[in-house]
Amino acid sequence: MTKLSVLPPSGFRDFPPEEASARATLTERISQIYRSYGFQPIAISVLENLSTLQGKGGGADNERLIFKVLKRGEELERGFATGDTSNLSDLGLRFDLTLPLARYYARLREQLPKPFKVFHIGPVWRADRPQKGRFREFVQCDVDIIGSKEIGAEYDCIHAILDVFSLFGIKGVEVHLNNRALLAALGTSLNISEERWAEVLVALDKLDKIGPSGVMEELGGKEWITREQRKGMEEVLFSMGDQGEPQDSFWEKIDGKSLAGIRELQALLQANLHDDAQIKIRFNPTLVRGQDYYTGTIFEVRHPDLTGSLAGGGRYNRLLEIFGTAETPAFGGSIGFERLFMLLTEQEKLRAYSEAPQVFFPLFHNDLRVPIYKIAQDLRMRNLRVDVFPDAVKLKNQLKYADDRKIPFVALIGEEEWEKKIVKLKNMKTRAEEEIPLDAFAKIMENLCL
Amino acid sequence: MTKLSVLPPSGFRDFPPEEASARATLTERISQIYRSYGFQPIAISVLENLSTLQGKGGGADNERLIFKVLKRGEELERGFATGDTSNLSDLGLRFDLTLPLARYYARLREQLPKPFKVFHIGPVWRADRPQKGRFREFVQCDVDIIGSKEIGAEYDCIHAILDVFSLFGIKGVEVHLNNRALLAALGTSLNISEERWAEVLVALDKLDKIGPSGVMEELGGKEWITREQRKGMEEVLFSMGDQGEPQDSFWEKIDGKSLAGIRELQALLQANLHDDAQIKIRFNPTLVRGQDYYTGTIFEVRHPDLTGSLAGGGRYNRLLEIFGTAETPAFGGSIGFERLFMLLTEQEKLRAYSEAPQVFFPLFHNDLRVPIYKIAQDLRMRNLRVDVFPDAVKLKNQLKYADDRKIPFVALIGEEEWEKKIVKLKNMKTRAEEEIPLDAFAKIMENLCL
Repeated sequence: MTKLSVLPPSGFRDFPPEEASARATLTERISQIYRSYGFQPIAISVLENLSTLQGKGGGADNERLIFKVLKRGEELERGFATGDTSNLSDLGLRFDLTLPLARYYARLREQLPKPFKVFHIGPVWRADRPQKGRFREFVQCDVDIIGSKEIGAEYDCIHAILDVFSLFGIKGVEVHLNNRALLAALGTSLNISEERWAEVLVALDKLDKIGPSGVMEELGGKEWITREQRKGMEEVLFSMGDQGEPQDSFWEKIDGKSLAGIRELQALLQANLHDDAQIKIRFNPTLVRGQDYYTGTIFEVRHPDLTGSLAGGGRYNRLLEIFGTAETPAFGGSIGFERLFMLLTEQEKLRAYSEAPQVFFPLFHNDLRVPIYKIAQDLRMRNLRVDVFPDAVKLKNQLKYADDRKIPFVALIGEEEWEKKIVKLKNMKTRAEEEIPLDAFAKIMENLCL
Repeated sequence: MTKLSVLPPSGFRDFPPEEASARATLTERISQIYRSYGFQPIAISVLENLSTLQGKGGGADNERLIFKVLKRGEELERGFATGDTSNLSDLGLRFDLTLPLARYYARLREQLPKPFKVFHIGPVWRADRPQKGRFREFVQCDVDIIGSKEIGAEYDCIHAILDVFSLFGIKGVEVHLNNRALLAALGTSLNISEERWAEVLVALDKLDKIGPSGVMEELGGKEWITREQRKGMEEVLFSMGDQGEPQDSFWEKIDGKSLAGIRELQALLQANLHDDAQIKIRFNPTLVRGQDYYTGTIFEVRHPDLTGSLAGGGRYNRLLEIFGTAETPAFGGSIGFERLFMLLTEQEKLRAYSEAPQVFFPLFHNDLRVPIYKIAQDLRMRNLRVDVFPDAVKLKNQLKYADDRKIPFVALIGEEEWEKKIVKLKNMKTRAEEEIPLDAFAKIMENLCL
């Protein structure tokens, strides 16, 4: 027989029990926090029609990253016969949760509340080059409000996300706020055409990685840029510094309305923060965010110890139009689960559910199966987690198993104990042993474990 | 702009909030029950190398049903140039949870407890023809014990599965037990070669759908079958009847050892059933189960109101060898989540978490945002689910939203109330209204809601 590889595909992961359990705990806590703001859960299949994924939703960059699914049967033969590799696939794995949500809302909007406050936690896939800390399957935790153009929607999404960080004890995150309209107004004020301004934003979006000089260098390579335009950009970039606060007097002239909106949202967020979470809310006029579907407020949550962001999002008032609905205001944000999980693990701030059984019964002899299974079942019906060793092997090996799984109590019932109708209960921490009458056992274990 | 379809791909589903929530509840309850037997959770990426999925694990039928993922970039070009459609894909979506578990165990076995008691709840994908009640993405709930050849492993898996049905109040399920060794012995006793016996088992596997006459008809079509062999099969098939109990005296002669094992497992299971669940445990010598990796005990859980099965599984002591590990005994079972969910919904036995916010604040005026958000945040920190309407639109529309979402309490704070430092609390069920001083409000809501 040929031996198959035991590895998952490159860039994909197997989670050991402890990690799987901790991930489940984190997912559930985030759900609870999102629920506390009135967001509702949804579920959507992970495959979408390729035409949906290739719609305007994500831009060319995402298109390149789609895991496409091969057509099947005759469809595949027909596609293959065209000699064009773009005819081989009909479905794809979603690369984010926003586009499927937009399709979902466009389909079901008649039966959904208005506005629709929704959360969705699930995996997405990107055919990126695998590298350290970057995975091809990863989880996103999205909150969105569809059907409200108000600042209240922006508050709810951003504040729910901040509560996740606060309630897990992560201190010192920074929220960067900006508005796409303000960015567009900056382009206009510099006399740069819309098309060319899009090029500038692509460079500006790298600010975090390449710094202001890097951005200026990229802009310098553009032959169309004038000296005034360069100077204007330089002013914006270097005025920001690392923690520099942008001057309202300057931005007032560029786009007073957007500035006022940003300052109002900033104040509203600041009013209700957890004091000990030490969160900073900042206006950052150089924040771009990659997606081209944003139309208004955008935000990003960063942490001083990390490059890149922990969360981000923005307003996408026009995305739903690709599905034929009228202009529908929408705002959403997303926590990157993997980075949060990494941060919590490093800071040892994530305590998983205890998966370990609470009581362990070794099996001394096959003949004792029937009574021991009955006792174990009784405990389970009392909501205890109970494990019975399946094989009557050497006691030493059975106790090693109990130790490996960190089971706190071992209940020994050998032939002698069974005859005397007692249980020898061993506390694995203190190593103390006591004999308990069988008819009092369940009640005592309930008191010990619940 | 071309309008994109709002539909998911054919055979895939969008779950509205209520259903998504009920599915999450069911998943969590099943996890709890599995945990109560000492099973641990794992998580595995949904994509596997195609070579893994095409290994011996599932047989030709499953191979046909794999959603394959298109190669990318140069790899795709190279594959395409070979002119062979089998070179276009490198990855695939898993079609069950057993094969990925086997790979996972083979990889991580050194760090896992022995035996390894594991559960895994997650979606699988099959490129079946879409039809009513059959989906291309569906959830399975697996429990497995790897590393034990004993009846205790079989008990734990099957009993944990039965507890799921019992604890949700599903009455009258039937467990059918058989052993692959006993089936093989039957073939030998009829003087049918191993290869031809496999053909017979394929026909026998359809017994549930086509009945004994249908099976005999299929066998009649085989030219090699002798009159004695036909007569022998007829005897087995018609002796079973609908509820007929197979005669031990007959099967004793065919395979006494397997028979004894089945009867022991039956007795062990029967000893600890919930009385009011009315579960029947039966020996069914015609039970086959499709997968070709089973080596010993097999089982299926059926319900008189449904065709097909609710759960099933068996012993697969040799599956791990395809990953190069030494023979490793293993037993597992799986609940079909979709059928269980359907049954529970029909019988109205599934109560989801309440997703609805407990308190709703309409917004009378934008100026009231700051104080109302503060009050709402205070309630959230007390673990209440609180919703504030994002827009200061007509009160009627805001109250309609609260009604649609079935929010039990509406807390009105208009300018007058804010000045007087009171809240007008409306109980949406009784329509009773009362005025509550602002400084007592949080405490009162806590008492009302928690």
